[in-house]
Amino acid sequence: MNIKITGVGSYVPENVQKNEDFQKHEFLNEDGSAFGHPNAVIIEKFKAITGIVERRYVDPALTTSDIAYLAAERAIQDAGIDPEELDYLIVAHNYGDVPHQQIQSDTVPSLASRVKHKLRIKNPRCVAYDILFGCPGWVQAVIQANAFIKSGIAKKCLVIGAETLSRVVDPHDRDSMIYSDGAGATVVEASEEEGGIVAHESATFAFNEANYIFFGKSNNQLLDDERRYIKMHGRKIYEFALTEVPNAMNACLQKSGFGIEDVKKILIHQANEKMDEAIVKRFYKINGTTPPEGVMPMSINKLGNSSVATVPTLLDLILKGKLEDQELKKGDVILFASVGAGMNINAIVYQF
Amino acid sequence: MNIKITGVGSYVPENVQKNEDFQKHEFLNEDGSAFGHPNAVIIEKFKAITGIVERRYVDPALTTSDIAYLAAERAIQDAGIDPEELDYLIVAHNYGDVPHQQIQSDTVPSLASRVKHKLRIKNPRCVAYDILFGCPGWVQAVIQANAFIKSGIAKKCLVIGAETLSRVVDPHDRDSMIYSDGAGATVVEASEEEGGIVAHESATFAFNEANYIFFGKSNNQLLDDERRYIKMHGRKIYEFALTEVPNAMNACLQKSGFGIEDVKKILIHQANEKMDEAIVKRFYKINGTTPPEGVMPMSINKLGNSSVATVPTLLDLILKGKLEDQELKKGDVILFASVGAGMNINAIVYQF
Repeated sequence: MNIKITGVGSYVPENVQKNEDFQKHEFLNEDGSAFGHPNAVIIEKFKAITGIVERRYVDPALTTSDIAYLAAERAIQDAGIDPEELDYLIVAHNYGDVPHQQIQSDTVPSLASRVKHKLRIKNPRCVAYDILFGCPGWVQAVIQANAFIKSGIAKKCLVIGAETLSRVVDPHDRDSMIYSDGAGATVVEASEEEGGIVAHESATFAFNEANYIFFGKSNNQLLDDERRYIKMHGRKIYEFALTEVPNAMNACLQKSGFGIEDVKKILIHQANEKMDEAIVKRFYKINGTTPPEGVMPMSINKLGNSSVATVPTLLDLILKGKLEDQELKKGDVILFASVGAGMNINAIVYQF
Repeated sequence: MNIKITGVGSYVPENVQKNEDFQKHEFLNEDGSAFGHPNAVIIEKFKAITGIVERRYVDPALTTSDIAYLAAERAIQDAGIDPEELDYLIVAHNYGDVPHQQIQSDTVPSLASRVKHKLRIKNPRCVAYDILFGCPGWVQAVIQANAFIKSGIAKKCLVIGAETLSRVVDPHDRDSMIYSDGAGATVVEASEEEGGIVAHESATFAFNEANYIFFGKSNNQLLDDERRYIKMHGRKIYEFALTEVPNAMNACLQKSGFGIEDVKKILIHQANEKMDEAIVKRFYKINGTTPPEGVMPMSINKLGNSSVATVPTLLDLILKGKLEDQELKKGDVILFASVGAGMNINAIVYQF
C-alpha cells in the first residue's frame, strides 16, 4: 500500500497588499527607536532580501477557518471523493480564528470542527482536529495522516494548512511586510498506485531555539496596551535554518533511497527568498553539487509568507499549471521542506 | 508489541476556589436578565447538578504550559525514563497560554515546544506539537501516540493535557463555576508486557453540534467590549452526550473483545456529575445491566472540570492512592471516555 496525495486546492485571498502600501508606516526598531532611513529604502532592502513584492490579505468578513474551508472544498473536488468518506480532517494553523479588528483568537471549537461543519460532512467518524506546529504544520499533518493510514485507523484524510497572519502583525515592525494570508489543502489517501510518501523527517529544536518566533509587544513602546503580535529574531532564524534545514532534508533523502539527482523539485516553505535559496544551495553542497535551474519553485514574490499555507498552495499552483515554467509529471520525485516556530523542521520525499 | 502507559503525573493547582467564593457574583442569563433567585439558591442548585463543591485556579504567575511542564516532569519521573529518549511530546489544550489579566492567548511557539524547553530536552528528534480537540484532547493524543508507535515512527511518547479555564471564564455566567485549571501527563510506550491499549474509538459531531461549546460575549450586555469567554449550551450538550457517549463507549468495548463484566473502572471526563452518571448508567443499560458500585471514580467534587486535564489527573490520583476506595491492579480492564467541544467524543479500552 502506498500513501498518495490525490487532490489539491488552495485559496489565495484577492486583496493584494503591495510594498508601496507600507510607505506611510512608521517602522521602528525593537527598542522603539526610529530607523535611520526613509521607508522607500527600508522597503527596497526588504524586497532584496525576502523577494516579496506583494502579499495577500483576507477580506474583513473572513477568518482562517473560512479560507481553510474554501481550500478544502477545492481539494475534495480535485480528488473526486465523497467528503463523507473522510476518516480524518486535520487543520494546521497557529493563531486560530482572529476576527477582523479583534485581538482574541478563537480556537473553540477547533478550526477543523468549523471546517467540517462548513463542508456539511455528517459522518461522525470523520475525526476533526487541529495541529499547532509552527509554519511546518501542514507538512507535519501530512506525516500524521501517513501514520494514521499506516497504522490502519484511516484510509482518507483531508489535510489543510491555513493562516491569516494579517490579523497578528505589528504595523511598526518591518517584518510585518513578510506575512500574508492563505490556505492550502490536500486529500491524502491509501493507494494501489506507485509512489506517494517515500520518507519523512521531523525535528523540534526547543533547547535554545523555542522563542526565535514568539508573540510580543509592538515595537512602538508608546502604545500603552498589552496587545501582542507575531515577532521573530530574524538573524538567529537565518543562521539556525541554514544549518538544520539542509541536514533534515538530507536525512530524509537518504532514508528515501533516492539520490540527489532524482530530486525534480523542492517545495520549500516560502519564508524568505534569500534564506530559501541559501538552504537549497547548502543541501546540494552537502551532496557535492549545485542546485539545477528551476528546482525550487517560488511563490513568495507575489504571495508572501502565509505560514502553514505556503507549501500546499505552491503544490496546487504547480499542479494546476499556474506557476510559469513549472510542472510535475508522473514518477517525479520531490521534496517538501519547512521550518518555523517551535523551532520545528520537517521534510517529506514524495513521488508522483 | 503492546502500547502501555508507563508513567503518570498531574498538577493540581493549590488555590481552592469554593462555591461560597461565588456568592458576590452577579449571575445573569444569556439575554442579560437577572436570575429570579439569590446566589445561595443558584449555587445550591449548581452543586446538586454538577457535584462541584470547589475547583482549582492557578497562581497568577503560571500559564497552561507551566503546569503542563509540572505534570510532565512527574510523569517522566514516574516512568523512570530519560526524557531524551522521547520521540514525541504532545500537549492537548484548547486556549493556549492566556497570561493572568490578559485576554490574548499565546500559541506561538506551541505549548509543546515550551514544555520541551522547560524540560531541557536537547534531542531534536523529540517532535513536539499541540493538538486542539476540545476536552477529549488528552484521550485523542493518546490515540495519536498509539498510531505513531504502531506505524513505527515512535517508541516513547509524552502525552499531556493542560488547561487554565480560569483565564477564559465569564464572571456573569453561572457556568463559570464549572471550570477549573489543571494538568495531567502520561508516558506512553511500546512494551513487551501484556495489556495496554486494546481498542479505541473517536468521533466528531460537527453537522449540528459544532457550536454547542463556543467562545462568546459576556452575559453582562452592559460590558461594552469585544472580549469573549468560554460558553456552552448546557442542555443541548446533556442530551447529545447522553446518547452519543454511551454508543461510542460501547463500540469501543465491542472492538476490544472484552465484555461489560470485564470493565473494572470507567475514567470519564469530569464534565458534570449528573451527566457522567447518566452516561454510565445508559452504557450499562445498553449492555442489559446496571453500573457496579464504585465503577466510576470521580474527582469533580473537589477539582471541577479542567477540560483535557481531568482524565489523566484522575488516573494519576488513583494510581498514586490519592482517591479514597479506588485502586487499579495488574490485569484490570478500564475505559477512558471523554466528550467536549467540537463536539468530539472518544474512548479507549485499556488493560493494566
